[in-house]
Amino acid sequence: MPSLDLQADPVDLTAQLVDIPSVSGEEAGLADAVESALRAWAPHLEVVRNGEAVLARTSLGRPSRVVLAGHLDTVPLNDNLPVKRTGSGADETLHGLGTVDMKGGDAVFLHLAATLREPRHDVTFVFYDCEEVEAVRNGLGRIERELPEWLRGDLAIVGEPSNAVIEAGCQGTMRVELATAGARAHTARAWMGDNAIHALAEPLRRLTGYEPRVVDIDGLVYREGLQAVRVGGGVAGNVVPDAAVLAVNHRFAPDRSPEQAERHLREVFEGFELTVVDSSPGALPGLTAPATAELVAAAGGTAKAKLGWTDVARFAAAGMPAVNFGPGDPTLAHTQGEWVAAEEIRRVAEVLGSFLTA
Amino acid sequence: MPSLDLQADPVDLTAQLVDIPSVSGEEAGLADAVESALRAWAPHLEVVRNGEAVLARTSLGRPSRVVLAGHLDTVPLNDNLPVKRTGSGADETLHGLGTVDMKGGDAVFLHLAATLREPRHDVTFVFYDCEEVEAVRNGLGRIERELPEWLRGDLAIVGEPSNAVIEAGCQGTMRVELATAGARAHTARAWMGDNAIHALAEPLRRLTGYEPRVVDIDGLVYREGLQAVRVGGGVAGNVVPDAAVLAVNHRFAPDRSPEQAERHLREVFEGFELTVVDSSPGALPGLTAPATAELVAAAGGTAKAKLGWTDVARFAAAGMPAVNFGPGDPTLAHTQGEWVAAEEIRRVAEVLGSFLTA
Repeated sequence: MPSLDLQADPVDLTAQLVDIPSVSGEEAGLADAVESALRAWAPHLEVVRNGEAVLARTSLGRPSRVVLAGHLDTVPLNDNLPVKRTGSGADETLHGLGTVDMKGGDAVFLHLAATLREPRHDVTFVFYDCEEVEAVRNGLGRIERELPEWLRGDLAIVGEPSNAVIEAGCQGTMRVELATAGARAHTARAWMGDNAIHALAEPLRRLTGYEPRVVDIDGLVYREGLQAVRVGGGVAGNVVPDAAVLAVNHRFAPDRSPEQAERHLREVFEGFELTVVDSSPGALPGLTAPATAELVAAAGGTAKAKLGWTDVARFAAAGMPAVNFGPGDPTLAHTQGEWVAAEEIRRVAEVLGSFLTA
Repeated sequence: MPSLDLQADPVDLTAQLVDIPSVSGEEAGLADAVESALRAWAPHLEVVRNGEAVLARTSLGRPSRVVLAGHLDTVPLNDNLPVKRTGSGADETLHGLGTVDMKGGDAVFLHLAATLREPRHDVTFVFYDCEEVEAVRNGLGRIERELPEWLRGDLAIVGEPSNAVIEAGCQGTMRVELATAGARAHTARAWMGDNAIHALAEPLRRLTGYEPRVVDIDGLVYREGLQAVRVGGGVAGNVVPDAAVLAVNHRFAPDRSPEQAERHLREVFEGFELTVVDSSPGALPGLTAPATAELVAAAGGTAKAKLGWTDVARFAAAGMPAVNFGPGDPTLAHTQGEWVAAEEIRRVAEVLGSFLTA
């Protein structure tokens, strides 16, 4: 079993975590290492294993509790292990699978778990599995069902990459399919048919003319979006097609519920058959909650809107303020060449350390 | 070996042909039967075997020659053999695979081969294979390459179903693919990308607004068409797609060459990247040619425009007038329940018999 040094510099710890491969569904080795390291280095914490997730918490009777959550899994290997380290000082960089998404965040949380013996808030650490695959396998969802009390608190911090800037709330996402119907005919006698692909002209016209909202919530700016993500149709090269489908992804600001977003899409595409195939609510930034305000202050007073959807929405759905805060550029996630600046890892560790001990 | 009776009523002969299955690529049994029947019943003809095609001709030194061509193959079985016969008189009907496409026409030609000993024109009979599959396997194409002199003449009559009405010429067909390009981005940050599916709005607008030509040639009316036949695009449910494609099938009247048709499509879709993926020229009706005019007169003076593409275009490309003339409703071809009225088979036999002997 690899032995993780939780007292080490979080940058070194990140490198150790990266070198234990943990593609979704194959996290057992890393979960074992995390569990044994927590038991060894953080005897002050209550540690629980749930599947390939590891949970740990203080119970100091503090008036508030902060949940720090990070997933242990990565997308598949792409010839990008083991970790490579380059540069020094401001240029010090870690390269490799998971450096950005999100073993830098995990390392910071593990380091805090071992080193913060007297935190100002009670703290729950959640290291979970299967975030990178279909929602039904998500380890956080399983913990919600099996150990819901472990996810309760006054603020959740999800360590997904956010360039070491607090990203508050998240936008909702909804995928709909717009289906057109027609009547088949031989293309040599096209007037006997009704072309379902031609019927996509109008919804595509509406899409290209659509002006997405820009929404200000608590001073954060959310930019919505409405994008075709798939189109398909056709029977044969000489047949007027009788069916076509246009899949559209809507990203909506957290001032709207999924129900409101769906209503909006039905207005936009009035006259067309619409089916919701996937929907996840957004999360309000909740910057006015006391613990969140404290965290933002510890980070220097700035926060940004999170535009992508992350597991913060699970906490928000339970009524908790939740933010993303982690090292690394999220646009590098899932790319072969992902890398993280060592100084972002250290900055996140400092901000959280100061927030939790001040 | 089944023994075909070429002297029999062409309706009975149709039934015999239908009951020898001959799906494309598996025509050997039927070709053998046709060859031995021609050798037995039509000793006045020169008979040649080429692959699974059978050719036969007179050489009487007539001033003109008529080529009668029919394919022996069918589309795959669909629980529609053996032949079923229903009704009598005007309701007499043959049901089953190949009754329409096109063993009724073959039966008429075989009957004429055996019974017309002194035709007014020299006659070439061509029974060929693999018409129902990709053009490269087409038996008529192979004969063109290997025995080109067997396809020469002053008029070609292709016995494809035409409701026992002479259908003259045929429209050309061209398939093009219109490709749009964009730039990928996460749908949560769509403004960083450029949606290639949205870029299809404009070509689809042009398609829906397109007014196809209606062209009169020799008194026949050709209705053109421009139809999307396939659309595709999309990367993932959360990605702005960077590529999409729209396949369009153009049916064009035979007053235009494929080059002219392509030029027209490039005008229609100006500003978009267009690739021609498939193209077949049309065939002018050639009704003014003497032999064609005689045939139309024998059929009662009427002819219609052929809108679909058939092998008449191969003859037209060689400079010969060519028509479709056969029993059966072409819209029933390739359907499980294809059927042919016995009286259409008899009518085609009478018209051709009178044309060739008068």
